[in-house]
Amino acid sequence: MAGKATKHLSTQPSVIASAAIGGKKEGEGPLGSIFDKINDDPYLSTQTYERGESRLQKQAVLHCLEKAGLQAGDIDVLFGGDLLNQCVGTTYGVRCFEMPFLGIYGACSTMSEGLLLASLFVDRGVTQNAMAVTSSHFCTAERQYRFPLGYGGQRPPTSQWTVTAGGALIVAQHAQPPYARACTIGKIVDMGVSDANNMGAAMAPAAYSTIKEFFDDTGMKPSDFDRIVTGDLGKVGSRLLCELMQQGGLDISHNHSDCGMMMYSFDTQDVHAGASGCGCAGSVLCGHFIPRLQSGEIKNILFAATGALMSPTVNQQGESIPSISHLVWLSNETTV
Amino acid sequence: MAGKATKHLSTQPSVIASAAIGGKKEGEGPLGSIFDKINDDPYLSTQTYERGESRLQKQAVLHCLEKAGLQAGDIDVLFGGDLLNQCVGTTYGVRCFEMPFLGIYGACSTMSEGLLLASLFVDRGVTQNAMAVTSSHFCTAERQYRFPLGYGGQRPPTSQWTVTAGGALIVAQHAQPPYARACTIGKIVDMGVSDANNMGAAMAPAAYSTIKEFFDDTGMKPSDFDRIVTGDLGKVGSRLLCELMQQGGLDISHNHSDCGMMMYSFDTQDVHAGASGCGCAGSVLCGHFIPRLQSGEIKNILFAATGALMSPTVNQQGESIPSISHLVWLSNETTV
Repeated sequence: MAGKATKHLSTQPSVIASAAIGGKKEGEGPLGSIFDKINDDPYLSTQTYERGESRLQKQAVLHCLEKAGLQAGDIDVLFGGDLLNQCVGTTYGVRCFEMPFLGIYGACSTMSEGLLLASLFVDRGVTQNAMAVTSSHFCTAERQYRFPLGYGGQRPPTSQWTVTAGGALIVAQHAQPPYARACTIGKIVDMGVSDANNMGAAMAPAAYSTIKEFFDDTGMKPSDFDRIVTGDLGKVGSRLLCELMQQGGLDISHNHSDCGMMMYSFDTQDVHAGASGCGCAGSVLCGHFIPRLQSGEIKNILFAATGALMSPTVNQQGESIPSISHLVWLSNETTV
Repeated sequence: MAGKATKHLSTQPSVIASAAIGGKKEGEGPLGSIFDKINDDPYLSTQTYERGESRLQKQAVLHCLEKAGLQAGDIDVLFGGDLLNQCVGTTYGVRCFEMPFLGIYGACSTMSEGLLLASLFVDRGVTQNAMAVTSSHFCTAERQYRFPLGYGGQRPPTSQWTVTAGGALIVAQHAQPPYARACTIGKIVDMGVSDANNMGAAMAPAAYSTIKEFFDDTGMKPSDFDRIVTGDLGKVGSRLLCELMQQGGLDISHNHSDCGMMMYSFDTQDVHAGASGCGCAGSVLCGHFIPRLQSGEIKNILFAATGALMSPTVNQQGESIPSISHLVWLSNETTV
């Protein structure tokens, strides 16, 4: 039998710095003030949207390094990935830094996966300074996953708006909150949802699987946490997750926060079921939750971003949407 | 300053089992006998090439588990990825196993990255049984990266033939060769090559960077190894790598092996510059090198597969091709 999927981080390493970069719409939303930089130009002064997305990651890495007082050469390993085919948002965005690099793919769960791997690498002494980065961009994602932007396709009510944003963070041994206390490696869950415009419903069971596993493995309970944070379940997926948790005997209805519900104003920004994309959970963690854990405004969160592991090709072939969620417990307090 | 990119694996964990699955052309080549199973049907009895590729990974995992005498539930973590958009070869191939899963993206370096991560996880006590899997498929890769198969596009002499194959391995603490002794995390290298039909030239500098770093970090020399193995540099890239190494003061011309040069017969199989794809290095490592390290026929290899981190979209936008190579030292002998 395999061991538990939840790994305790016995040294409780710190997230020593984080940075969030946004686009125009993100700057206009209720979280506008969390971003280190807002880019009004969707091309970010490049010739293509893809180069623009790469620049989001480059900016996130640079701001994060500056806040940590580190140089690119101080980073022992960088975990990065994004939604674009072959993860080119990342590879072209970070190639200039010449950091040891391990590419990851977790769709919108990428920041969870990167934070989990960075925390494990530092906790187990593989590396000193481990970085994680991700991004998404409305214009690159729309044309890759759905339709050309100029087509003006009708969006169903369950659809979500891909966030134009990047996030980066650095994990290291340091006496500074937040501390990474434990993490849970997710399993692929596929409940048969095949509607690519209803990612929330496809991903909610993956979030349930991982969060439930964390509580089963640790014996902790939802009320031990100020916030149980998912990445981009949106309205539909968030409701489903709370129902699934309730059925599983865990009430998270009072302390569940979904980054996809926080990013935009439902009243004024016309985003249907909410926000989505690697950059959604990535920037909300790096710009909102980590600073609040640093200040002590909140003490403990579970961060469990989810990812839909499909492609347009296989979806058009009639396949359902397998999903995954990885989880990290971040705390203002350390017991080490 | 960052620490060394080369990490010694102080417990020297074992690769306890490996499996290689091939297609018809691979079965007809000089390495035909290394495969645990050959699939003559490019669809592998499914309706689409993509589902066929997923089945390659499923078969590789199943054969590997059987050889190790383990069940899916015994695996603590699976690292997997492939060349397809959103890595669907992997995610649809392994979703049935319900293993804790961490998606990786390293293009054709994926087996190196998976082996490196699995070895580190076991060495540092994160998990007991760590698995890595990858695949590629001629028919899925051709239509995604180049042209529809029916188009019959002319292939230039520098082009390589994408291997239809999968490979899987399991790392665990066990007194059984081969032992993973050290690994080097690669950096992204981009020397400005933008010809998507000359991946060998784009990737050779990445292999050079990582192999040179290993020798610099460890003080070892090429003659300490029976074979220095690259993944799919092919004729052009292999020649370039040997030249770069020579210029760097390291002669690997007598013990360099490239999986892309080994897979097919240049005389009879019309593959131009050689073989390529995640499944090339993946299956040759799992079906050829690991069994020979187990038997003691060879004592020490460096396995350094390379990956080209571009996408057709950014290549068509005029971008050059960033590449990466990760390295693992596998040995018949342990000093622990």
